[in-house]
Amino acid sequence: MDKINICEKLDLFNDYWSPKILGEVNESYVKIAKLKGEFLWHIHEKEDEMFYVLKGLLIIKFRDKDVILNEGEFLIIPKGIEHMPVAEEEVQVMLIEAKTTLNTGGIRNERTVEKLERI
Amino acid sequence: MDKINICEKLDLFNDYWSPKILGEVNESYVKIAKLKGEFLWHIHEKEDEMFYVLKGLLIIKFRDKDVILNEGEFLIIPKGIEHMPVAEEEVQVMLIEAKTTLNTGGIRNERTVEKLERI
Repeated sequence: MDKINICEKLDLFNDYWSPKILGEVNESYVKIAKLKGEFLWHIHEKEDEMFYVLKGLLIIKFRDKDVILNEGEFLIIPKGIEHMPVAEEEVQVMLIEAKTTLNTGGIRNERTVEKLERI
Repeated sequence: MDKINICEKLDLFNDYWSPKILGEVNESYVKIAKLKGEFLWHIHEKEDEMFYVLKGLLIIKFRDKDVILNEGEFLIIPKGIEHMPVAEEEVQVMLIEAKTTLNTGGIRNERTVEKLERI
């Protein structure tokens, strides 16, 4: 049982859209990721997903609105809601997600990360 | 589905050791709390618990060691491990906990908060 310094962990990688697992709390993983550019429209049919912005500005697009998240803000996207994260500049986020959550939701393509790295 | 600004929520209360619910992600609550002084030794027999320090310095005492958490650091305390948080000065934390988690674990006394406020 060791403490984790999030900034130190963020310094360990530079790839975008590839969440890393920092720990697990009950049925959830605590992850961090760096995001830049557009992701893809997707849905997590059975899992809520929490995006907490550590650095930068993240836009989460929905079919009927955009939500803009600044540093220190979070959004919980309920299961079943289609969304697409967009980061015009690099954004650093912490994610709280069910262990079963796939980054691309119900879609599997070249952006899917099947096996997440633990750092 | 609204975004949450954690600093704004922290400004809404001043009581210590009384976690407030900000949202829910699957089986977990996202909570914030202000801590000052000593809490009490307790165990969550069935639930892991995540302490993430937003501001200040938090000591989490275990029977065999102390863990000191600075701003931007977190610790996940696995279920079944006895612990006691101590804050010499005010600390602000985010907690990720199972919805079933009671702040005092297996103990019920005057420090137990049975019904958490949502803010």
